[in-house]
Amino acid sequence: MIYDLAIIGGGAGGITAAIYAARQRMETILITKRFGGQMGNKATEVCNYPGFPRIGGAELIKKFVAHLNAQKCVEIKFAEVRKISKEDHFVVITTEGEEIASRSVIIATGADPRPLEIPGEKEFLGKGLSYCVTCDGPLFKNKAVAIIGGGNAGLEAGIFMTNYAKKIYILENGPEIRAEQANQDEVKELKKIEVLMNVSVKEIKGGKLVSSLIYEDSITKEEKALDVQGVFVEIGSQPATSLAKGLVDFNDKDEIKVEFETFQTKTPGLFAVGDANAGKYKQIVTAAGEGCKAALAAYEYIKKQK
Amino acid sequence: MIYDLAIIGGGAGGITAAIYAARQRMETILITKRFGGQMGNKATEVCNYPGFPRIGGAELIKKFVAHLNAQKCVEIKFAEVRKISKEDHFVVITTEGEEIASRSVIIATGADPRPLEIPGEKEFLGKGLSYCVTCDGPLFKNKAVAIIGGGNAGLEAGIFMTNYAKKIYILENGPEIRAEQANQDEVKELKKIEVLMNVSVKEIKGGKLVSSLIYEDSITKEEKALDVQGVFVEIGSQPATSLAKGLVDFNDKDEIKVEFETFQTKTPGLFAVGDANAGKYKQIVTAAGEGCKAALAAYEYIKKQK
Repeated sequence: MIYDLAIIGGGAGGITAAIYAARQRMETILITKRFGGQMGNKATEVCNYPGFPRIGGAELIKKFVAHLNAQKCVEIKFAEVRKISKEDHFVVITTEGEEIASRSVIIATGADPRPLEIPGEKEFLGKGLSYCVTCDGPLFKNKAVAIIGGGNAGLEAGIFMTNYAKKIYILENGPEIRAEQANQDEVKELKKIEVLMNVSVKEIKGGKLVSSLIYEDSITKEEKALDVQGVFVEIGSQPATSLAKGLVDFNDKDEIKVEFETFQTKTPGLFAVGDANAGKYKQIVTAAGEGCKAALAAYEYIKKQK
Repeated sequence: MIYDLAIIGGGAGGITAAIYAARQRMETILITKRFGGQMGNKATEVCNYPGFPRIGGAELIKKFVAHLNAQKCVEIKFAEVRKISKEDHFVVITTEGEEIASRSVIIATGADPRPLEIPGEKEFLGKGLSYCVTCDGPLFKNKAVAIIGGGNAGLEAGIFMTNYAKKIYILENGPEIRAEQANQDEVKELKKIEVLMNVSVKEIKGGKLVSSLIYEDSITKEEKALDVQGVFVEIGSQPATSLAKGLVDFNDKDEIKVEFETFQTKTPGLFAVGDANAGKYKQIVTAAGEGCKAALAAYEYIKKQK
């Protein structure tokens, strides 16, 4: 069987695309490792998806998935995609070697956390070091933790951790915080949080579990240690786009180049939405809007082919 | 005082822009005649805004407005805007002559219903003829009504009217229905609805109130009458964009041309989102996504100016 549309990814972009494809009665398959994308990983509390003034990331995913499940005609497959190829139609190949044929494809694979690449990072993963404050934050009740990264994700992680940790350091590489003002204001009010600027993190140390973090003050060049039991890495993300090699062009961040009205890549019938593409603005509501547009564009593409 | 951002319009695009601007702590004013845009006018039931599998248009507006009201720093002004001009900064001029100064402006004025321009249309407005099935539909309990237009709006109006009317005609100008398949399937199931194709509507007739509709069969050229007490016009919309004349370029539908990554018009600092711009896809979730992007782009624009 050849599907009309294969959607790869189960975050805001992929689910919205599936809702719209289903309402167009396209034969659609959504392939994802799991639901939620970064809403689940990172977004502890979402305050900017219109219609929900403040909602937990996990709860918002549930609402998206319930909306998806209310549609007919969308098949859901839990698998990881390794590669997309194109002959007469597209072939989506999973890591287990299964091949799924489809007339059009939307890449909505989002992004993975960017690693620090310093000594101790791999060694202490799951032993005090984590990329997901929502998942692992509650383990650090009454402990001291360091959050690496002074962007929105870092500050939001810090705010969330005030529910658990007794002391929270937010470590920013540069000379200023780059988060939205609302988050900066909230962090200033919270006495458990201490923000350190011009910090270059050098190493994570410990025995069985993390016990300290070594950093250099980029101004004084002094090396210092913080006694922490937890380290959260929040220094941005890498788009999960290698599956599209050969069919698309990338920018210097490995994001897929698209035309911003339809989100089509350089290969007709192949679209990329959300964090996977080269758009400047990466929000839940923008990923959702892009998923809608790509699904409607895919529908027009299919109609012309048939 | 000079605002950082003036948002014109209180639908999905304008409200989302305001939420994002507020979270950036921009001094923001939102100017609108009323809240809701076409969500209120047209969308009787919304099934495709992710997170809400099925919700009334009016209820969804309430949720958007509640989200807006949860923000600090957004001033709301109920007024109609006549014109935008640009000197050192932008000046937004209301129909009452008030002038509001702002460093950046987002046009989110949406669209107004397109009129038929046939005899009887103006005469029977509010006397059986309406552009808003949500507003006026319930007046036609156990009556026969004609809905003019076989697009999504027409079919959704027809589905909604099965709650009230005893007989519903949907009149389509062309040889085929142009609505999404889910709506077409639903209409087929509803026995109260009769769809007529190749219909050219000529006149609305009646005494004090509408009593019939005259149309020509475009194939046979035969003139026919339908006995109906209500007529709903659902033949699309006209963007409400004349306020921007002189500062932007328009396409042949009077929609504002924008760059689709930031939604900036040809005038730096002036943005257009949702139904007011020349984008192909006009949905609640796309307007919301565009409002977010334009607000973030306006923030960057302001930061560079200061």
